[in-house]
Amino acid sequence: MCHACVMESVKARMLGEPRLGRRDLFKGALGLAAAGTVGAATLRPAPAMAQVPGEMADMTHTLHPDFPTFFGDQQFWEEQLFNFAEHGFNLKELRVNEHTGTHVDSPMHFSADGMSVDEIPVDKLIVPLAVVDIRAKAAEDADTQLTPDDLRAWISANGPLPAGACVAMNSGWASKIDSPSFRNADDGGAMHFPGFHVEAVQMLMEEADVSGIAVDTLSLDFGLSPDFATHYAWLPSGRWGVECIANLDAVPALGATLIVGAPKHRRGTGGPARVFTLF
Amino acid sequence: MCHACVMESVKARMLGEPRLGRRDLFKGALGLAAAGTVGAATLRPAPAMAQVPGEMADMTHTLHPDFPTFFGDQQFWEEQLFNFAEHGFNLKELRVNEHTGTHVDSPMHFSADGMSVDEIPVDKLIVPLAVVDIRAKAAEDADTQLTPDDLRAWISANGPLPAGACVAMNSGWASKIDSPSFRNADDGGAMHFPGFHVEAVQMLMEEADVSGIAVDTLSLDFGLSPDFATHYAWLPSGRWGVECIANLDAVPALGATLIVGAPKHRRGTGGPARVFTLF
Repeated sequence: MCHACVMESVKARMLGEPRLGRRDLFKGALGLAAAGTVGAATLRPAPAMAQVPGEMADMTHTLHPDFPTFFGDQQFWEEQLFNFAEHGFNLKELRVNEHTGTHVDSPMHFSADGMSVDEIPVDKLIVPLAVVDIRAKAAEDADTQLTPDDLRAWISANGPLPAGACVAMNSGWASKIDSPSFRNADDGGAMHFPGFHVEAVQMLMEEADVSGIAVDTLSLDFGLSPDFATHYAWLPSGRWGVECIANLDAVPALGATLIVGAPKHRRGTGGPARVFTLF
Repeated sequence: MCHACVMESVKARMLGEPRLGRRDLFKGALGLAAAGTVGAATLRPAPAMAQVPGEMADMTHTLHPDFPTFFGDQQFWEEQLFNFAEHGFNLKELRVNEHTGTHVDSPMHFSADGMSVDEIPVDKLIVPLAVVDIRAKAAEDADTQLTPDDLRAWISANGPLPAGACVAMNSGWASKIDSPSFRNADDGGAMHFPGFHVEAVQMLMEEADVSGIAVDTLSLDFGLSPDFATHYAWLPSGRWGVECIANLDAVPALGATLIVGAPKHRRGTGGPARVFTLF
């Protein structure tokens, strides 16, 4: 790892707000490096996901029947089939729309025969995370979008996007999750929240090597989108999305590894996922 | 990391059968260590989960309507609400019993008021993995159990169980997943598959610091158990279980980090999980 990369790594970590004191987590690897068994690694440029994982964060909102949804109606139900007092154990049956809570969009969500959620390779689900912070402009304008200029600003500050990365939009929306301002529908029913501009995902497809994108809002497209342009540009390309991601404030702009615990039901179009970061 | 620990680590990795060539994954951390920024780590004993993560494996069976279940009846259903040809996108609604597929048992599954699946702390879901191989005796006797002697044999070969570990039973059952021999019910309906002996989990509770246990069969208890003794001993203690884990043959006895992508629905007794290992 070059000196500049080390500096970038340290800077990126300074921006983070560690949630759990697990800095010792991966330190054994460092000890082994010092013992010389994998010393060649010091000569390589480091993928961002490889930078001193020692903290962990949960990027998942808690799911419940009142969780906000894109369509506005309830999408998660539960029924207690057995209870401890009567049966000696607790067990529920769940009913859920695949696109509910912190969840994955697989390519087949917006394509005739794209990859289903169970087919996404593991090495596309454990990837470097790049967090693009558009909180300032989203606070000014709920209809804003993450644009190519936002990506260029990130690259200017952090260097090239890491190979295979997930690019996440931090619009500050996660903190609104328990409020009507998360959907932010107006009197006419139109929703107002940020998303990826279609030109931004076109830039990612043409100029970078990116596995997926994530948003802290209800849709990869911004709320006012009339045509799901970003969904139709991005998902059929074989890449995935995560919607309603939580806790992006807690992780650095560069340097975290995202772990997308996507559900693995056969031919799924997506589904509620448990999402973590290590950094 | 002491010399003996390095040897153990190398030995443990030799036992593994890497599935994905991602040895470069965490090497940046090593480069940073060599640069001296976290050199103090070399003086500490390393947690097992910290040993050179560079491979990743998926420990999750694909879920589908015919997935074998403990009770024998179907526990997963899906309905296609929207399809690409007609609506321009694909979307399904799922119905699932929480204890289906590769899944988590939370403490409240077998206790009146224990921790629910959404309440399990992240640092109890990303933990060192210890794999106890009982394939030989399970091949001889489907009613066998993982006993304190099996744990002692593992410790004798690998050293103390890592702090906070998950102890997993590899009985060889995962390869039977698409066959009736996974449930292995006899003509009278009694099931025959291995599980943890209650004395083994008592030993783990009394003599080690273990976060969870995992089995490659349908139940933490063996199939013939008349009383769920292991469930009742283990889960009310605040620890979790994973049932129907896959792919234990691919990971070392010691040295992998288990990532349990547990679902996060409020007051859940458990649920289908995406489970990975890094090693």
